[in-house]
Parts: sequence; C-alpha cells; structure tokens
Amino acid sequence: MSHVASLHPCGCGIDVHAHIVPASFPAYLGRTVPSPWPSTGEAPDARGLCHRHVLVNGRHYRTVDERCWSAPRRLADMDRMELAMQVVSPMPELLSYWLDLGDAQGLIRFLNEQTTAICADSGGRLLGLAAVPLQDVDAAIAELRHAVEALGLVGVEIGSNVNGVPVGDARFDPFFAACVALDVPVFVHALKPTGMDRLVGPAQLQQVLAYPGDVGLAAASVITGGLLQRLPDLRLAFSHGGGTLSALLPRLQQGWEVFPALRESIPESPRAQAARLFYDTLVFDAPTLRHLLHSFGAQSLMLGTDHPFNFHEPRPLDRLTEAGLDTATREALALGNAQRFLGRYLTLSKESS
Amino acid sequence: MSHVASLHPCGCGIDVHAHIVPASFPAYLGRTVPSPWPSTGEAPDARGLCHRHVLVNGRHYRTVDERCWSAPRRLADMDRMELAMQVVSPMPELLSYWLDLGDAQGLIRFLNEQTTAICADSGGRLLGLAAVPLQDVDAAIAELRHAVEALGLVGVEIGSNVNGVPVGDARFDPFFAACVALDVPVFVHALKPTGMDRLVGPAQLQQVLAYPGDVGLAAASVITGGLLQRLPDLRLAFSHGGGTLSALLPRLQQGWEVFPALRESIPESPRAQAARLFYDTLVFDAPTLRHLLHSFGAQSLMLGTDHPFNFHEPRPLDRLTEAGLDTATREALALGNAQRFLGRYLTLSKESS
Repeated sequence: MSHVASLHPCGCGIDVHAHIVPASFPAYLGRTVPSPWPSTGEAPDARGLCHRHVLVNGRHYRTVDERCWSAPRRLADMDRMELAMQVVSPMPELLSYWLDLGDAQGLIRFLNEQTTAICADSGGRLLGLAAVPLQDVDAAIAELRHAVEALGLVGVEIGSNVNGVPVGDARFDPFFAACVALDVPVFVHALKPTGMDRLVGPAQLQQVLAYPGDVGLAAASVITGGLLQRLPDLRLAFSHGGGTLSALLPRLQQGWEVFPALRESIPESPRAQAARLFYDTLVFDAPTLRHLLHSFGAQSLMLGTDHPFNFHEPRPLDRLTEAGLDTATREALALGNAQRFLGRYLTLSKESS
Repeated sequence: MSHVASLHPCGCGIDVHAHIVPASFPAYLGRTVPSPWPSTGEAPDARGLCHRHVLVNGRHYRTVDERCWSAPRRLADMDRMELAMQVVSPMPELLSYWLDLGDAQGLIRFLNEQTTAICADSGGRLLGLAAVPLQDVDAAIAELRHAVEALGLVGVEIGSNVNGVPVGDARFDPFFAACVALDVPVFVHALKPTGMDRLVGPAQLQQVLAYPGDVGLAAASVITGGLLQRLPDLRLAFSHGGGTLSALLPRLQQGWEVFPALRESIPESPRAQAARLFYDTLVFDAPTLRHLLHSFGAQSLMLGTDHPFNFHEPRPLDRLTEAGLDTATREALALGNAQRFLGRYLTLSKESS
C-alpha cells in the first residue's frame, strides 16, 4: 500500500509528531482487576471544542479535546499551522506495554483501527503510526504486519523504554528487523521516564523535564548498543529533538575516544551514528534548534509539534524562520527529511493540490 | 581566613572542577559489616607515575595516580594546562552519604584534612572544597563550619543527589543557609546517577551518559524548587556544564509559560534563574560551549577539567579559543567568574607572581 499525498495549499510542512486519542474506549472485558485500562469521561467544553477526560486506572490522566479524534477539527488547525500533513500516533500513555498481553493486544488493535479511521477521514492529510505490544516481540511483529499490510498505517510509534528496558537493548532486534523488512519507519516517543525521583515540583514536570532525559538515553542506547550496525537500513526517529542527546553526545564522543572499553564495544563513532538517526524539531527555541543542526546535521531533523495537546508547538515553521536557516535546510526540515523517513509510503505531488 | 593568590606565570585560568584522592585511607574501625568504606591498593606504575587502585566495598572502583595526592606532580600538569589555580574537591564517590553517620563523619574529617594538606603544599595554587555528611543536615553544617573556619577550605562539594534526593529539595535549606552565612560557594557534582537502568554498554557509561542527566536534573530541581528565591545570595555551581540542563531549559521555560501549575509554583522564570547559577565548561566541544553561553550567559561559566582522572579535559583554555570568544568573555570564563564564585576567599594579585 502506498500513499500519494498532495501538498495542501494551506501548508508546506509535514509534522511527524502529533497524537490521537479515541473519543471513547471499549469497556474492559479482561480478567485482571484492577487493570490500567483507559476510559474517557465527559469534561466541560471550552474554546468551542468538545473535551473529554482520559482516565487510566480510574484516575484522571489528562483532559483532551476533539482535535484528538476529529479529522475536520484537526485539519482546521493544520491550516493555521501551515502543515500540509501530519503523521499521527497514539498518545504514548496508551501504548499498553504494562497490560497483560491479551489485554494489550485487544486495546492496541482498537487503537490502530481508530488511527486508520481518522486518517481515512482526512483527505490524505493524515498518515498513521501503529502501536504494537512490544512487551512481547513476536506479538509486536504480528501486530505491525497487520497494521501496515491490512490497515495501511505507514510506520510505528514505540516508547523510549519498554517497562524500563531501553529500546537499544538487543532483545528488540527481531522487531526492528521486521520494521526494515516491511520498510516502515519507527518513531520513538518518551514514555514512563526514568528520573522521576529527581523532580521537585508539580506533576507536569514528568513531561517537561523527565521525558527529554528518557528519550535522550533511549537514543544513546541505540548508539552504544550498536543497533545501526546490525540493521543499517533502519529508519529511527526520536521525539522532542532527541531530548537530552545533544547534551550527551560530545561527552559520549569523548568517552569513546578515551575509554578502550567503549571504543571496543562501539564500532562506529557516536557522532557518525547520531547523524544516521532522525529527530523532531520540538525544542521550543530557535538557538537550540540551531544547536541540534550542529549536533546531528541538516539531514536529521523533521517538524514535530505534539499537537493537539496543550503543551504543543503552534507555529513550527516560524521556528525555522527564527533559526535563520538557508532555503535548502528549511526545505529539508519542513518536508524533505520527513519524506525520506516515511520512505515509500509518501510520494508528494505538488501539482495535484 | 582569606586567600591572597598569585597568578602563576605559567597559567591564566582557574579550574574549579578537579579532584583529589588520598594515597591511603585509615583502616575501618566502625561496626557496620560490610561497610562501603574505601581503601587503596598498589597498582602497576605507568607513564612515570605511581598508581593505586581505589576499592570501595572491597571491589575495584577506579585506578588513580599520584597527581591525586601529590601537589608537585599536580602543579607540573597545571603548568602544561595553563592553569594558575585549581579548586580541588574529593572524588565524589568518597562523599559517603551512604555510610552510617558516625563512619561518614570520620571519613569526611579525614578527607577534609587531606584536602587541606595538599593545598598547603601547593604554594597557594590549590584551593580546597570540603566534603560534608549531607545525610544529616545538622552534621553537615557542623563539618562545613569546621572545614571553613578551622581548616581554611574555601567552599564545599556536594553530590547532585543525597541518597536519591535531589539537591533542590527543601530539606537541605538549612545547609544552604549555612553556606550563605559562611559566605562560601557550593559545587554540585554528579553522583550515583538516576537512569542507570537505561544504559546499554560498559560500566564507563555511568560517568559518560548518566552523570550529565543527574546533574541536569539537580540544577532543574533548584530552579523548580525555588531555592534561589529563598536564598538569593547562594553561589551554586554545577559540574559538566550543568549536564543536560541546557537541553531541558527551553522546554522548562515553555512549560512554565503554558502550565498554570508550574507558573504558580515557580515565581521567577526558569531562564532567569538558570542565569543566576554557575556551571563549569567541561563539555569537550566548542560549539556546545557556545550553546552554554547562549543558554546561561557569559557570567555563568568557569573552567572545569576533571583533572587528573583519565577522562579529563587536558586543554581547557584551547576550548575557549576554539569557541571564538571575545576578550571579555574569555577573561570571564578563564578567571573572572571563578573569582566571583569563590568570593572573599580569593583575591588575585597579578603583580606578586
């Protein structure tokens, strides 16, 4: 299955980091009580948008609005944000690695069908990433194959860790090999981060401060674990500008040059490996964006917004302008790199718009 | 007590991040068995230097050489590194927060006396930071007072966390208030970091990848916890360029602007607070150093090397040159900021050299 997408006249960028949440979830029919199964409940509407509370384990997790499940509402935002397309993925808290496998399989199949439905309702402007039950690598491969071949999703979103195990751990190799075999990209999103016991302040600091640390260590684990040596064709992107990786990379490079044990276990230099990964631009600061360009190279960055959650980047293309990029770099970050990342699943046709 | 230091003709920089390790430790006479008490053992000499293994819990922790305990050997390096002075602090693994309080008090008193001795043997080119048993705030204050008033140490080194509690936690306020009352600076060094379960590779990744994350979250905890609001005169520096803080800060700033709960709990903007802290330059990369200047300001950075450990910066002033700093910024980073950080304990006299 291939997507021939048209560049919408309102937009000139592709946003690879945007989320969906279903309006409601099936009732839990499993046998584990209590189960961290999600549900939604009515919330007061605001700003002309229907809102719902998302509950996990019966506790309030987040309040979201209809842009999470309504394609028309989302497209109106995308026009304002100058986005031709969005690559949408489930809210990471729904990835369900912590559920019993059977429960997770049911919930994830439902999620993937919901993602397919919102994309089908978008006139080709939304492409969807699958969720997979990565607590069981074989089950994850089976779900990925179904999501890509039967549902038409164009890639997969995974967490920065799976129940505490970073994505660079070799146990996930068969799953990543399946991604290469299916020629689909992988988007790694921060999830249930390490460092929570180091925070002093409100609950929002989890996503503000601990998310970047976890995704930075996830990217580092791919580099130190040698995943790209084993699977050189894997296309792997990291959320939130790679989190803290840009701060870790010079020290990792220096450590690799100084410590024989690191030099022996990491065959390719950390800097060279980092340049072979993808990252989104979601850093909220033009000088930091320029620093990512220095750290990772112009071929590595793609627009990311976290739309439509409260803590999102409303003007992703303005950040590129602020950063003072030349035309080729701007085009690469706005469009070209996302095209390479998405691969055969995206053939853009400017003419047909 | 005040130090009138002379700028040595061989050097024009002050290094605030350098470590000592005693050549040997007293035998353990406490009652906890087994105790994580340190000891040293003979190691093969190399490069014309006497080496010793440092053991903790009877296991090999690190092999160090005589530059850790010999002032003349250290001064020869400092001449080559173009350093007028070093501010030396104990190897952080010796900070002993995890020992029984009585054991920690004995070991820390010994350490502080050893630091005093190497400084006394340096012709004024080494200034020492105290260790304190911060697992007990009252005991830490008592040791700090002794170290400053009786031994002549010029400040204190603390870990980025104390048995898992980040330094921004309000329980440490009385200790920081004592630092302000004694007018001594605090150097926060990465220690027993979070995120160890996210690493894939050799043991050295603890210091290479996890250290920067822990010190970044420590600095963030000071900002989100409001320590500088309660103690505006506190002089606080963070190791390893503040670790990951430069990557976290734009997101923390944006979160502060977006989330009412963060706005209410953090009275001063994260960016403004970050500019009131100090950081060393130990990032091994000139573009990253320039990014720290953008993130924190030219008034915040001081030379740091991790000398004489294997993984140290041998040419700290060359990094400033590589970064293309103007004369005033270079002078601030090489000397001026360290003078402000050290405060009344350092009066430089270029004439008397």
